[in-house]
Amino acid sequence: MNALEEGTELTIDFGKLRSIGRNDQNVVPVALQDADSNEVLFVAFANDRALRETLATRRAVLWSTSRDELWRKGDGSGDVLDLVEVRVNCEQNSLLYRVRPRAAGACHTSDANGQSRRSCYYRKLSAEESGPSKLEFDEKPR
Amino acid sequence: MNALEEGTELTIDFGKLRSIGRNDQNVVPVALQDADSNEVLFVAFANDRALRETLATRRAVLWSTSRDELWRKGDGSGDVLDLVEVRVNCEQNSLLYRVRPRAAGACHTSDANGQSRRSCYYRKLSAEESGPSKLEFDEKPR
Repeated sequence: MNALEEGTELTIDFGKLRSIGRNDQNVVPVALQDADSNEVLFVAFANDRALRETLATRRAVLWSTSRDELWRKGDGSGDVLDLVEVRVNCEQNSLLYRVRPRAAGACHTSDANGQSRRSCYYRKLSAEESGPSKLEFDEKPR
Repeated sequence: MNALEEGTELTIDFGKLRSIGRNDQNVVPVALQDADSNEVLFVAFANDRALRETLATRRAVLWSTSRDELWRKGDGSGDVLDLVEVRVNCEQNSLLYRVRPRAAGACHTSDANGQSRRSCYYRKLSAEESGPSKLEFDEKPR
């Protein structure tokens, strides 16, 4: 079991953005949203090349900041996200890809039935008053 | 007029994440979503302190990476975002704040009626086949 992905301990990785900065990657965060259910699927990164290919091919293309290469979502898993529209925020430093999942899922992790999870936000933080937060699995809310 | 915010030219700021990295800030991206309409409001950043205060005070608290200080959303504008729940992604390197806007808006920009815009994603990229993308104002879709 991958404890980070399937555990109930909150162990946030605060280092990812620092490594993006150190590697001088020209990327912006992208929120990916199911255009039908409006569920938020995940947050990833795009550079100019990924954005252009997204618009040209009408499917979600990101930039993998860990592999430093184009990430055509779904090429390996089949979980292609067809593009509905791209939106940009007020300050033009983030993007919103509104997409339609071609298969059932969008996350690289699998649920108890072995299906790709629909969204990467399948755990919520418990609302305990004090102490470290625990995670609860909860795949229903959109 | 602020052309970046009110114009129709796409001029994405790819430098923000690099400056976060250079300044060694321990933050993760946060997607903020209206828990009732499921509209994505904006993407911001949080560190451990902002997350703890969000959970303790039950309203959205972020980390301002430009001012390098806690950003209690709505303290100046009144556009407080009451917290419904916090979710974390599979790899624990981003957060989803599901919130309920206390006032009408969530964006620091204003619409033609002088009201804070509900979401920062009030412009979409045109679907032209080639050439640089133009932006269209479109505040309706959620």
